Amino acid sequence: MARPITLFTGQWADLPFEEMCKLASGWGYDGLEIACWGDHLDPWQAAEDDSYVKAKLDLLEKYGLKVYAISNHLKGQAVCDDPIDQRHKDILSSRIWGDGDPEGVRQRAAEEMKMTARAAKNLGVDVVVGFTGSSIWKYVAMFPPATAEMVAAGYRDFADRWNPILDVFDECGVKFAHEVHPSEIAYDYWTTVATMEAIGHREAFGLNWDPSHFVWQDLDPVGFLWDFKDRIYHVDCKDAKRQVGNGRNGRLGSHLPWADPRRGWDFVSTGHGDVPWEQCFRMLNTIGYTGPISIEWEDAGMDRLLGAPEALEFVRRLAFDAPEAAFDAAFSTSD
Amino acid sequence: MARPITLFTGQWADLPFEEMCKLASGWGYDGLEIACWGDHLDPWQAAEDDSYVKAKLDLLEKYGLKVYAISNHLKGQAVCDDPIDQRHKDILSSRIWGDGDPEGVRQRAAEEMKMTARAAKNLGVDVVVGFTGSSIWKYVAMFPPATAEMVAAGYRDFADRWNPILDVFDECGVKFAHEVHPSEIAYDYWTTVATMEAIGHREAFGLNWDPSHFVWQDLDPVGFLWDFKDRIYHVDCKDAKRQVGNGRNGRLGSHLPWADPRRGWDFVSTGHGDVPWEQCFRMLNTIGYTGPISIEWEDAGMDRLLGAPEALEFVRRLAFDAPEAAFDAAFSTSD
Amino acid sequence: MARPITLFTGQWADLPFEEMCKLASGWGYDGLEIACWGDHLDPWQAAEDDSYVKAKLDLLEKYGLKVYAISNHLKGQAVCDDPIDQRHKDILSSRIWGDGDPEGVRQRAAEEMKMTARAAKNLGVDVVVGFTGSSIWKYVAMFPPATAEMVAAGYRDFADRWNPILDVFDECGVKFAHEVHPSEIAYDYWTTVATMEAIGHREAFGLNWDPSHFVWQDLDPVGFLWDFKDRIYHVDCKDAKRQVGNGRNGRLGSHLPWADPRRGWDFVSTGHGDVPWEQCFRMLNTIGYTGPISIEWEDAGMDRLLGAPEALEFVRRLAFDAPEAAFDAAFSTSD
Amino acid sequence: MARPITLFTGQWADLPFEEMCKLASGWGYDGLEIACWGDHLDPWQAAEDDSYVKAKLDLLEKYGLKVYAISNHLKGQAVCDDPIDQRHKDILSSRIWGDGDPEGVRQRAAEEMKMTARAAKNLGVDVVVGFTGSSIWKYVAMFPPATAEMVAAGYRDFADRWNPILDVFDECGVKFAHEVHPSEIAYDYWTTVATMEAIGHREAFGLNWDPSHFVWQDLDPVGFLWDFKDRIYHVDCKDAKRQVGNGRNGRLGSHLPWADPRRGWDFVSTGHGDVPWEQCFRMLNTIGYTGPISIEWEDAGMDRLLGAPEALEFVRRLAFDAPEAAFDAAFSTSD
Amino acid sequence: MARPITLFTGQWADLPFEEMCKLASGWGYDGLEIACWGDHLDPWQAAEDDSYVKAKLDLLEKYGLKVYAISNHLKGQAVCDDPIDQRHKDILSSRIWGDGDPEGVRQRAAEEMKMTARAAKNLGVDVVVGFTGSSIWKYVAMFPPATAEMVAAGYRDFADRWNPILDVFDECGVKFAHEVHPSEIAYDYWTTVATMEAIGHREAFGLNWDPSHFVWQDLDPVGFLWDFKDRIYHVDCKDAKRQVGNGRNGRLGSHLPWADPRRGWDFVSTGHGDVPWEQCFRMLNTIGYTGPISIEWEDAGMDRLLGAPEALEFVRRLAFDAPEAAFDAAFSTSD
Amino acid sequence: MARPITLFTGQWADLPFEEMCKLASGWGYDGLEIACWGDHLDPWQAAEDDSYVKAKLDLLEKYGLKVYAISNHLKGQAVCDDPIDQRHKDILSSRIWGDGDPEGVRQRAAEEMKMTARAAKNLGVDVVVGFTGSSIWKYVAMFPPATAEMVAAGYRDFADRWNPILDVFDECGVKFAHEVHPSEIAYDYWTTVATMEAIGHREAFGLNWDPSHFVWQDLDPVGFLWDFKDRIYHVDCKDAKRQVGNGRNGRLGSHLPWADPRRGWDFVSTGHGDVPWEQCFRMLNTIGYTGPISIEWEDAGMDRLLGAPEALEFVRRLAFDAPEAAFDAAFSTSD
Repeated sequence: MARPITLFTGQWADLPFEEMCKLASGWGYDGLEIACWGDHLDPWQAAEDDSYVKAKLDLLEKYGLKVYAISNHLKGQAVCDDPIDQRHKDILSSRIWGDGDPEGVRQRAAEEMKMTARAAKNLGVDVVVGFTGSSIWKYVAMFPPATAEMVAAGYRDFADRWNPILDVFDECGVKFAHEVHPSEIAYDYWTTVATMEAIGHREAFGLNWDPSHFVWQDLDPVGFLWDFKDRIYHVDCKDAKRQVGNGRNGRLGSHLPWADPRRGWDFVSTGHGDVPWEQCFRMLNTIGYTGPISIEWEDAGMDRLLGAPEALEFVRRLAFDAPEAAFDAAFSTSD
Repeated sequence: MARPITLFTGQWADLPFEEMCKLASGWGYDGLEIACWGDHLDPWQAAEDDSYVKAKLDLLEKYGLKVYAISNHLKGQAVCDDPIDQRHKDILSSRIWGDGDPEGVRQRAAEEMKMTARAAKNLGVDVVVGFTGSSIWKYVAMFPPATAEMVAAGYRDFADRWNPILDVFDECGVKFAHEVHPSEIAYDYWTTVATMEAIGHREAFGLNWDPSHFVWQDLDPVGFLWDFKDRIYHVDCKDAKRQVGNGRNGRLGSHLPWADPRRGWDFVSTGHGDVPWEQCFRMLNTIGYTGPISIEWEDAGMDRLLGAPEALEFVRRLAFDAPEAAFDAAFSTSD
Repeated sequence: MARPITLFTGQWADLPFEEMCKLASGWGYDGLEIACWGDHLDPWQAAEDDSYVKAKLDLLEKYGLKVYAISNHLKGQAVCDDPIDQRHKDILSSRIWGDGDPEGVRQRAAEEMKMTARAAKNLGVDVVVGFTGSSIWKYVAMFPPATAEMVAAGYRDFADRWNPILDVFDECGVKFAHEVHPSEIAYDYWTTVATMEAIGHREAFGLNWDPSHFVWQDLDPVGFLWDFKDRIYHVDCKDAKRQVGNGRNGRLGSHLPWADPRRGWDFVSTGHGDVPWEQCFRMLNTIGYTGPISIEWEDAGMDRLLGAPEALEFVRRLAFDAPEAAFDAAFSTSD
Repeated sequence: MARPITLFTGQWADLPFEEMCKLASGWGYDGLEIACWGDHLDPWQAAEDDSYVKAKLDLLEKYGLKVYAISNHLKGQAVCDDPIDQRHKDILSSRIWGDGDPEGVRQRAAEEMKMTARAAKNLGVDVVVGFTGSSIWKYVAMFPPATAEMVAAGYRDFADRWNPILDVFDECGVKFAHEVHPSEIAYDYWTTVATMEAIGHREAFGLNWDPSHFVWQDLDPVGFLWDFKDRIYHVDCKDAKRQVGNGRNGRLGSHLPWADPRRGWDFVSTGHGDVPWEQCFRMLNTIGYTGPISIEWEDAGMDRLLGAPEALEFVRRLAFDAPEAAFDAAFSTSD
Repeated sequence: MARPITLFTGQWADLPFEEMCKLASGWGYDGLEIACWGDHLDPWQAAEDDSYVKAKLDLLEKYGLKVYAISNHLKGQAVCDDPIDQRHKDILSSRIWGDGDPEGVRQRAAEEMKMTARAAKNLGVDVVVGFTGSSIWKYVAMFPPATAEMVAAGYRDFADRWNPILDVFDECGVKFAHEVHPSEIAYDYWTTVATMEAIGHREAFGLNWDPSHFVWQDLDPVGFLWDFKDRIYHVDCKDAKRQVGNGRNGRLGSHLPWADPRRGWDFVSTGHGDVPWEQCFRMLNTIGYTGPISIEWEDAGMDRLLGAPEALEFVRRLAFDAPEAAFDAAFSTSD
Repeated sequence: MARPITLFTGQWADLPFEEMCKLASGWGYDGLEIACWGDHLDPWQAAEDDSYVKAKLDLLEKYGLKVYAISNHLKGQAVCDDPIDQRHKDILSSRIWGDGDPEGVRQRAAEEMKMTARAAKNLGVDVVVGFTGSSIWKYVAMFPPATAEMVAAGYRDFADRWNPILDVFDECGVKFAHEVHPSEIAYDYWTTVATMEAIGHREAFGLNWDPSHFVWQDLDPVGFLWDFKDRIYHVDCKDAKRQVGNGRNGRLGSHLPWADPRRGWDFVSTGHGDVPWEQCFRMLNTIGYTGPISIEWEDAGMDRLLGAPEALEFVRRLAFDAPEAAFDAAFSTSD
């Protein structure tokens, strides 16, 4: 049986949840990865109010959709970030932002992440997808010099802030799937290694593998699946296109907005970029990943109503199952 | 006559200035690009005390060295940076750091940059090399989302803080050469374009071209010289090696220290990296750059006493002058 | 609303114009870029005879087709070319070829280009697509040596011959879109820069951007659109495939005919080659190009009746409009 | 008229022949390349029993299928191989394996190849596809050192064993098409040159061109067609994907099974790999190859029932015929 | 202090040992990696006769040479190989070859490997370099099909044959350094992983890292050092040049002799090939490898008397030590 | 004994011949490839005047120089060229240019080529290096369309004009070595194939292999040596650097002068470009080329007095002889 394909609702949170369900269902998606913002899912209510949960599940059922994971990138981001500034205010609810005092914001965000684990449990979902934030991302240029001790302190800060959250995840029997992503504590291969060490490889903490962030950093998304095969808890399909090679577009994006062709890379609709999708899906078969493939649709140069169904069709065609028998079995002789 | 080759003293500021002079002279350098830190050059004294200036110049003369430019990267960095934190404290003098209040640090740093222009004038030097800092570098990952207006505000902040400094440069007949570098307002091609626009292309503000930052960002250092040919005020030779290609080392460096082979790129001794030096030097001939080539020696995996003379030899061999006549002139007939 | 897609009739001029209309309409094209040869369009008649124009427009209307541009590559080629030889005779009408005296041919061709501007005006079309020819293309190998003065004379010859033609274009309110192409005055990036300078950047003279000629010369068709964004007057979609890489096929084509796989590159049906179409169409959106995309179908290894509808489908799928809002708008909070 | 597309039955020999016919016919294949194993074709019976032949042909006709070639890779392999071991036993019938004495196995295999020529003749087919085996493949690593004389002896052994077989082919008016493939006497370009020389370029011996073995060896399958154009007797379409580039997957495959993503390359469904199919098909048009294109479907990571019809559709779209006239004929003038 | 550079005597065993010493000493080598063939070193005598050992050590001392490792590739090769044939006879002494019965050859070779451990101990050397041989190398093409069980049996055969040898190594306090190399049990990355597993990662068994075999297999020799950093017991510097890229030269070498430019790769003098030497040496510094760098000189297209001293000079220039302090220490302020 | 290295005097013909001898001798060159222009060599005098020849040879002997080949590119160019124009006038003597009538120029140039054969014979030299010119080079862009017949006529014109010249070469026992070069009848791989066919592969006509023209056309200079191994009569070492890759510099050079960094490629001093010199020299050893290696020094961005000795040192280091014995001979056992 083919793997379920879901749509992440994060980029559609301006639409009412039911409209989102209607669209996704109409295009043929098997389910949703529901974002904990807009009116799509309030983790506090879902953690505390059974009728709220039931209403959500009923709505999904009405549209023939499943939910395998919920996502709370925006609040997770605030747990470790430093500085906390206007950018965070723009994406946090007033409940979390409060008076904007950085440490208060971080602690309220951490509380919401615990609530999100409880919400997941109540929804019958065993994975929460999200970001961790990072207090050391700001050192990425390594100038002014950041010492090894400053970097180490960042990983400790992450562990200190997330271990209590993960304790709640363990209580709920839910896992957290961090999306490896610039601006997070783990943003590439070796930072993922260091992050896993910082948290003692505890099972509650795994990865949401999204290859779009790999290709422009020159990382191999396929080998990454192999190396972290016991920590791949969720898969987000976003694509990215390298646009370097003319000598003027740089890897770091030049502070230019999405869809500006002078950026050195950009997010594009799944199948329009440089991710080697088929090799990725084959590796997911090999490592025995059994969860959904969720399309996180982001392309500032294309209409999402055009892109989302096209992306589904693209993924369905390539995310085929492995066969039962090896092809050279047919050569065997048993006369 | 061959172009002078100088040594930047920034990475040697732990040595007394005279020892630096002795070493550079012994290796055969033509001069120094003197750093405004350690005991190499105090811009306040140089701006205000003629005897201090004379002593420096006498010392240079004793060792047969010239000075074509002085550098003040560390204080320039603090003019626009945000946040201002421990990293800045580690590289600033107590005179600039003071009580560490960010806005105070920025303003004191700006004052020192004005002093540096005056120091340059007194030394008979017409170029100050340095950094600008940036209030928007922290947005480089573009998540949490930074709006176009936030980015525009960063360029305006740069202009507001540097225009008064550049007024002093104009008074002194000295030019500022900004090193295009991650963590600065201009860190690649298109940010350099935007920076020049922000400051109205005023002549006092130009560039210190250092190709090491270009190669790992996939930028073409040769074409950059052509496009900004009227603003190339100084040349720093640092080299960088891309170490991606194994699927695990990433472009962003993984917060790993210099010389760790898991970084996706690293600074290396001039001639050991990916900069197309000969093409660069040929382009410098073409655009009519007449200043020095200054070796900024940085390689955390090599002993600097081994590297500095080797780099000089490397550059001397490739930075040859253009010839007088075209080679096909010999085909002409005048029988 | 989606951008109109037209078919250039130049490679179909052996068919009667009405048959061409029928075919294009049947395949679903939105319009035609009409060639001024065969019976497709006689610019002299169209310039002087209103009934001729009306008949053409009626025919287009009958087939539901629009016309946004007309093309006269073959006569434009003769305006500057040197030598004028059998190849020109083969593609020129006897009216232009006359007795074949080179200077006479050039002048009659220039007259026809003026007529073509008038024909465009009468047809309600504001762009004429074409070639310029070049008196210096023959120097491309630079051996026997061509002096800088010889090259400069070629650009002057171009300006001298085309300025009077462009005066007529200005009178008619029509623009000329030169196709950057080997054998023309502007055949790559830097020759386009020089050509624009030669003609004082006058607005009547712009470009027909056809990326097929870029990819085998190692030019970036996307960056070209950005750099000449105010002079992109028309877009022709032709594709080309590089066939080098076996050590024997050379970039210059070895005088081999089209469709010979030993050529180092070849024209192929749109979507079968190396043009990065999607990136190109996205850039056209970015620079605000509002004209048609015209498919110039050339593939000597494929049947045109198979290729023309396939190319239309290919372009329709990728030449999508830009969306209204940025995708990260959905992250905003307004609780 | 379009070129026939057939399906090679070798990887389907576990299915009864009629079921194979039914499947292939249902998917739209034009014919079969019938394997001489399983119950698909017994060359001994086909050589000696007319009713057996008639029954096969009737069955094909019932399903609207043609046969252009038959294949006997497994027995051909045993003709020259050394050592002969368990791997051979697993793929040979007991008639050929007998007591397993190596020389006996080789001679019985050679007899079967003669029978296969006769079978082909009786079926009205003029090409037998297969392998030759090789006594020197085991020297491929060149350590322990293999002398030039040892290698030369291998080519002589091949000629000695195959010339008598080819004599029978000549008698039957049938040609043998060897598949260039690792583990065979000819496995790349220069070994094919040497093989042809060993056999005196006799016409009975030609090639079954299968590009899947070329791409991972860095060979150009297109140029190969040109260079051996008079010896291309059959075409098998198998695809292969290079999976190197992460520094850990090696060209030699690491003894890993098919479909393991750690292999440096793998066979994949036609159109999913690195073969430049369109360029290949265009070259087949150019060299005047008039035979079938046979899909040899092998992909251990995909279900064959999904892959075989998809591969057919892929090939049909790209294996188009060459056109009648050159496109620039339309530029000619005959007013 | 700089790392010692030694010369491997295997390719010079036609010369008397003393002449070898004289040459190496004259060129400036620090020592020898002595081959156990020719008259260079007889492991049986060295294991059993103290005066033989003393004579060797005296000779080395006379020429100012050290020995850090001895090598016995040729006998190690025979321990697991299958088939055993003329190639083995050509490189084995008659003591080991005996009557040529394969199993007898393997066992006598195993005995010599034990003796080599004892010889090493007596010479005061703690590393023996060599090959293992492999019973499954012959399956490298995977056709005729080799089952997973056949492959697994090969690793078990290796463990069964080498564990008793390694027991003797443990007794002697000597380690075995296997050279990862085609035709051996471990010939690339994943076979090295499997080999280590087969032998339970026992400490007696480690690696002789020779990057020449990596580059043509598309393996990253630098990352390999990191991943196996606790098992790098010796370093051999051989270089290899990829000669593919013309579409005709293949990765597998076409059975062509060394120095034939039609081979897809070849061994070349250190520094003339594709090994990224400087990156390798930097990684050796990083992982703390403290042993010698031994030049294994092989280049069939160059005179060894020219090449050996040139290679030494090349390696000396690049195999520099890591420095004491980081370069950015000079930025620190302590005013 | 090492291969002789000579200097081509063509780019030095503005200097008196004796000064040229002095320079070349001083730098250590073994001989000269003497150009038939300037005062270096007058082929008419050398053909007819023994004392002139003796004086030249005496001068060479005085400076310890040999001559292996003489060159007459400039006159050879005029034999087939069309059009003949100012560029030819600039490089031809008045004896050949005469009244400038194209056909007369061609015939007088042909006469001089015959004289050059006679001059070579008198000098004791058996190779004349040069160009052929081409009447079809002007068709290189293939637009306006050039028919296959027009191209064929060009090869016939070449054969018609050169066969009588080659008859004289045969009489003199001298060979003509054509330099494959854009603007000539043979300018790449396939045009060389066609050229050889046009002239019936007659032995008098061979090649002067100069790899600088290969690299920017993406041709493999090493494979070319193999394929034309029986027609490599002379070797000229010129180097070229590709300067494409920034999206703006094009393969065709943009009519820009030499040394302009915006050109897509340029001639550079031997060893500063993209020619794989060592692989080339190894192939020359393999094919048994026994002639000189002649440095044709062209680099418009470097002083020739600096470049010529540097190029000699570069070539001497890499153009080493092949060794006597294979390296693995040392593995053999003969105990």
